[in-house]
Amino acid sequence: MSDAETQMPAAYPMNAGEGDYSYSKNSYFQRATTNVLKAMIDEAIIDKLDIEAYVSSCPATIRLADLGCSVGPNTFIAMQNAIHAIQKNLTSKGLLTKMPEFQVFFNDHAANDFNTLFKSLPPEKPYYAAGVPGSFHGRLFPESSLHFVHSQYALQWLSRIPDGISNRNSPAWNKGKIHCTNASEAVCNAYAGQFNKDMEAFLKSRAEEIAAGGIAVLTMPGKPDDVPYSKIPICVMYDLIGLSLMDMAKEGIISEEQVDCFNMPLYPASPAEIAQLVKMDGSFHIEKMELLNTQTRYEGGVHAQDIVMHLRAGLEGIISKHFGSKIVDELFRRLVEKTQDFSHLLESSYKEGTLMFIVLKRH
Amino acid sequence: MSDAETQMPAAYPMNAGEGDYSYSKNSYFQRATTNVLKAMIDEAIIDKLDIEAYVSSCPATIRLADLGCSVGPNTFIAMQNAIHAIQKNLTSKGLLTKMPEFQVFFNDHAANDFNTLFKSLPPEKPYYAAGVPGSFHGRLFPESSLHFVHSQYALQWLSRIPDGISNRNSPAWNKGKIHCTNASEAVCNAYAGQFNKDMEAFLKSRAEEIAAGGIAVLTMPGKPDDVPYSKIPICVMYDLIGLSLMDMAKEGIISEEQVDCFNMPLYPASPAEIAQLVKMDGSFHIEKMELLNTQTRYEGGVHAQDIVMHLRAGLEGIISKHFGSKIVDELFRRLVEKTQDFSHLLESSYKEGTLMFIVLKRH
Repeated sequence: MSDAETQMPAAYPMNAGEGDYSYSKNSYFQRATTNVLKAMIDEAIIDKLDIEAYVSSCPATIRLADLGCSVGPNTFIAMQNAIHAIQKNLTSKGLLTKMPEFQVFFNDHAANDFNTLFKSLPPEKPYYAAGVPGSFHGRLFPESSLHFVHSQYALQWLSRIPDGISNRNSPAWNKGKIHCTNASEAVCNAYAGQFNKDMEAFLKSRAEEIAAGGIAVLTMPGKPDDVPYSKIPICVMYDLIGLSLMDMAKEGIISEEQVDCFNMPLYPASPAEIAQLVKMDGSFHIEKMELLNTQTRYEGGVHAQDIVMHLRAGLEGIISKHFGSKIVDELFRRLVEKTQDFSHLLESSYKEGTLMFIVLKRH
Repeated sequence: MSDAETQMPAAYPMNAGEGDYSYSKNSYFQRATTNVLKAMIDEAIIDKLDIEAYVSSCPATIRLADLGCSVGPNTFIAMQNAIHAIQKNLTSKGLLTKMPEFQVFFNDHAANDFNTLFKSLPPEKPYYAAGVPGSFHGRLFPESSLHFVHSQYALQWLSRIPDGISNRNSPAWNKGKIHCTNASEAVCNAYAGQFNKDMEAFLKSRAEEIAAGGIAVLTMPGKPDDVPYSKIPICVMYDLIGLSLMDMAKEGIISEEQVDCFNMPLYPASPAEIAQLVKMDGSFHIEKMELLNTQTRYEGGVHAQDIVMHLRAGLEGIISKHFGSKIVDELFRRLVEKTQDFSHLLESSYKEGTLMFIVLKRH
């Protein structure tokens, strides 16, 4: 039974270690975003986090979690920024005789490279660090034990391949494609349905874990309600990967059947979908939700090599698991060419915000 | 500068992974001990742990830590046993409307193989798991955040090589030997001095982290106050490793100088030393301290191969770091022979308890 057919959440770790194709060397887009987001997260912490209640107990410990942290360094920067914002807020209010202590939980699937994460923890960090292995679609922490939850570039990963899309006997079979971009309505519905299930599970678990007055800051690729996937840059790239794979199938390097039963478990949701899910869950207020514009990478010409290196760090694991690691170099070489050939698709794609920024507050 | 000359606590990870020489396949002595100790730890939890105070807050979370956990499975068994003892105790007292939740922190050096640890976590565990990288000779957790601390076969590891013993210009130079067994008084004093510094640091950090009424259960190789190292079985084995290394030096496989500057950072303390250190720290009562007899492995003849495989899982890392990995197979082959040749030393060694079992309670 493949992962796609089981109910176990699947893990798609980023490339491990510190080599040329590693996530840790190819996560500068995410890092740029971390910096852009810093001011927005600071603001959420200062305006929305009910910190006073937490520091009134003695000794006070503020607990933070980064869900889907991968291997750093972005997770360290994000957590350090959040703690500085909390400290500044407390100091400015003059409430404290003693600064609380901080404990940070770095979470990702058990398949994540926690050894690398732990070895690269900043030596002078202002917190006690812990790693938490497991899927954030289930419970990871004790009841009401967290005060600040962060998740960046993680919630777009589906816990499993949507029902039916890899099955030739299903009406939602996604033949010749690897994503819902430009796909049939049945495929799109299967993707949306899986995202809804996952987000429901995520919100339910976090509602139990986050203390009243605590906040969750979630950042993930998204799309406006009325823009089709085919106009979203990252979705264009998924389509180009699909085209490259189909070229390789036509040349007999891989089989067409392998492509037909491969699908990317990634979904860019829209604000309307998120709003509906948060409302259904009922434990959180949406304090903020917007689509940010950080797509500077497609401006001033398409740098195919850079885009592909970045994608490779995140997607190599799932691709080599399905097709074998031998085809990976060839695929990404072709993807660079394909990106150059179809640069007009990227250049004419949606230029406004596709990075969803959400601040949820626990009642 | 070598590790021995720096002030950074050194890490000596057990053999990683799941191969023939791995710690996870060669920790059955420790596992046997885990089972022997179960009843004693249960008793400590029931009689000494002030659990009522912790479960009166709502929601209640009981936090446990295993310090120096290595990669399992012993740590999982020990933590599960402790939780069952707490649950039984709470149920028998009939105090609860709702069982508290449990969070377990698995701690070891950042060089420990946490990836293997996390992948082998029991799927149906009755707790939320977290890994905590770092030296237990310093702070690892927020103030008063732990209720039960466990450490088994870890505190005998010194944080660094004792001062001077690897230096040919020092009066404590340990020429031709690799441990304080049968060594000069200056060498013995250097070992004892380093253990004292480490244990002081350990107790100071734990005093800050363990909540009032919480307990620490510590198990480590020890020795009676009046028995010399040369009569303690594990110390005999260190001496036989030293003899095997000197044989190899005489044959030119390694240099004598390499042996002269190599020393095992392991120290079996005595009850009097521990009692003095706990008294000086001042934050704990000794609720129990005894030397247990679990040395069944040297009874009914010496099984050299078994003893050596067990030692190898724990010591290969530190030996290959100093001498290079090429000599490791040869060394342990010779050690099997040496153990057979000198089996009378093991057979005539101290037969009573050398496993120190300590229960400390935080005031």
